Amino acid sequence: MLSRHVLRQSVRNNSKLWTLGLWCAPFKRQETHLGRLNHVAIAVPDLDQSTAFYRDTLGAEVSGKDDLPEHGVTTVFVNLPNTKLELLHPFGEKSPIAGFLEKNKKGGIHHICIEVDNIREAMKSCDEAGIRLLNKVRVIHFFL
Amino acid sequence: MLSRHVLRQSVRNNSKLWTLGLWCAPFKRQETHLGRLNHVAIAVPDLDQSTAFYRDTLGAEVSGKDDLPEHGVTTVFVNLPNTKLELLHPFGEKSPIAGFLEKNKKGGIHHICIEVDNIREAMKSCDEAGIRLLNKVRVIHFFL
Repeated sequence: MLSRHVLRQSVRNNSKLWTLGLWCAPFKRQETHLGRLNHVAIAVPDLDQSTAFYRDTLGAEVSGKDDLPEHGVTTVFVNLPNTKLELLHPFGEKSPIAGFLEKNKKGGIHHICIEVDNIREAMKSCDEAGIRLLNKVRVIHFFL
Repeated sequence: MLSRHVLRQSVRNNSKLWTLGLWCAPFKRQETHLGRLNHVAIAVPDLDQSTAFYRDTLGAEVSGKDDLPEHGVTTVFVNLPNTKLELLHPFGEKSPIAGFLEKNKKGGIHHICIEVDNIREAMKSCDEAGIRLLNKVRVIHFFL
């Protein structure tokens, strides 16, 4: 079994951290170790226009659009050689991106996502350091 | 001779682009091709505290502090396996970071920096696409 965890850092406040995934069982305490930058998420007011800009003007390889109703976003990934940009646009009426775009009409960087070996330990370390966590621990387990 | 160019994208406005370096001679028109994400720059109100957070709480490898008077910033790099975070703090009285921290007291992501093969062509493409450029073309040449 391979556990793979993702730690997200919000844009506007360097002290906010949040995560996504499914809850996992308790485990032995380990040191946190920051891994790869999984992606940089950029909220955009016009997904087609931004996709065309990265593809046609900047010559980047881009994915198709992917609606994620459970997260309230539509995404397009811009592939870079060492990581990805994730273009985000609101999907549905309760999108978490809508408020951000209301404040930032032209869009902007919404969060960065950094992989860690152990999301529970990373969140515990952050909590102990006085960092406000936006979500409780939920972890994705990939079975390989 | 190897030319290496960097294209920066501002945080708050997905349509702003800026660059740094030294001017280079005209060249043949080529297509832009987005390269590696060189770094994500994060403006922080307390450089020592942020450095300690990434090093001690998140277990990241961090560089020493580097004062860059010509850019009005002090930097610390957080090394990730595939890219870097650049912590930025104002240096001197005319720092371009000061206004950002005035608006964002707790700091936040200031810009991302993406490498391109040809900065002049990339900026020309952006200009033609109606993207506002913050700087004129200046390019760094590395001689190897």
